[in-house]
Amino acid sequence: MHDSDIQDQQRDQRHVARMQRKKALIDARIAEASAERGLLLVNSGNGKGKSSAAFGMLARALGHGLKAGVVQFIKGAATTGEEAFFRRFPDEVRYFVMGEGFTWETQNRQRDIEKAEAAWAVARELLGDPQIALVILDELNIALKHGYLPLERVLADLAARPPMQHVVITGRGALPGLIEAADTVSDIALVKHAFQAGVKAQKGVEF
Amino acid sequence: MHDSDIQDQQRDQRHVARMQRKKALIDARIAEASAERGLLLVNSGNGKGKSSAAFGMLARALGHGLKAGVVQFIKGAATTGEEAFFRRFPDEVRYFVMGEGFTWETQNRQRDIEKAEAAWAVARELLGDPQIALVILDELNIALKHGYLPLERVLADLAARPPMQHVVITGRGALPGLIEAADTVSDIALVKHAFQAGVKAQKGVEF
Repeated sequence: MHDSDIQDQQRDQRHVARMQRKKALIDARIAEASAERGLLLVNSGNGKGKSSAAFGMLARALGHGLKAGVVQFIKGAATTGEEAFFRRFPDEVRYFVMGEGFTWETQNRQRDIEKAEAAWAVARELLGDPQIALVILDELNIALKHGYLPLERVLADLAARPPMQHVVITGRGALPGLIEAADTVSDIALVKHAFQAGVKAQKGVEF
Repeated sequence: MHDSDIQDQQRDQRHVARMQRKKALIDARIAEASAERGLLLVNSGNGKGKSSAAFGMLARALGHGLKAGVVQFIKGAATTGEEAFFRRFPDEVRYFVMGEGFTWETQNRQRDIEKAEAAWAVARELLGDPQIALVILDELNIALKHGYLPLERVLADLAARPPMQHVVITGRGALPGLIEAADTVSDIALVKHAFQAGVKAQKGVEF
């Protein structure tokens, strides 16, 4: 047998031993996690993927035959691909685009507050419907950060939702009180972005 | 006029001034970013949302009438919601689940390498098809991190793809060489996870 063959064999054996230890640890942790309940998930941070991750979960939920609702608190200039796509399934997804634009486009605090209140009224309806397994509140963090909606009221309505309903909230600058109330929180950091290299927002990627 | 009304008015005026400055800055940056090209995106980190964000982009691309391809390098125990959902659209999405399980489940390095090679052969086919606007290589980072596929070969095949094709690569532990080659990189940090509080993986959320 060649030296290199022996080395390969030793490497494979070490791999098996390491993976056996890992499997034992992971299996034990999975056995411990036995609770099931509706989760509150928050996707925040400055990187790309906060809303995309919510819409990936939406696809996932639809694949399991679940029903879902979406409220977009900030409407971009163009109709988004996700809106065009998920509107294909009106029996499975209730889809609402409520905001009027980014805060620096509207430049009108009173109107932004009115729009946020109207969006929350729709969100409350979804949060009151036990038939809806997943509610996405896209860019709600922006409305909370600017004080367009009071966090206490939002948290109270979230706490009163059906026990098995999952909620995903997205947007930069999640408030500490929301993070505390959440079950799963991802902070998506920007390592780099094509925009920094002069690439414009492209369909299928950014919208 | 009450003091509080005056304060509200001043607050609104400051808001307008701040938003006008912000709009000018953002508009200038958007005007500078004029290039269009196929992007290489990487979603890495220990937090939840790496694959979900890729599948959200898939929904977005389909909403724009684009075609896409998916290769999943690691197959979980159960059929995922995303697989069940996106297989509804065979004319728009080519969907391949190639892996056999997590590395600690197979415990067989040679078989993992063979599976990774077979998955890469399928990925190369998608990367060679200019009709496909978006290719998702889900959990490829795991295969690269374990050395099941040589990074140099993967980077060469990525560089040779059609110029307008977007690629999303997901998984923990993205290699530095891949991050360097990528256009947009998100590092998804785990702030907290329901699993840590004893909640099991639930359909529509984790799979």
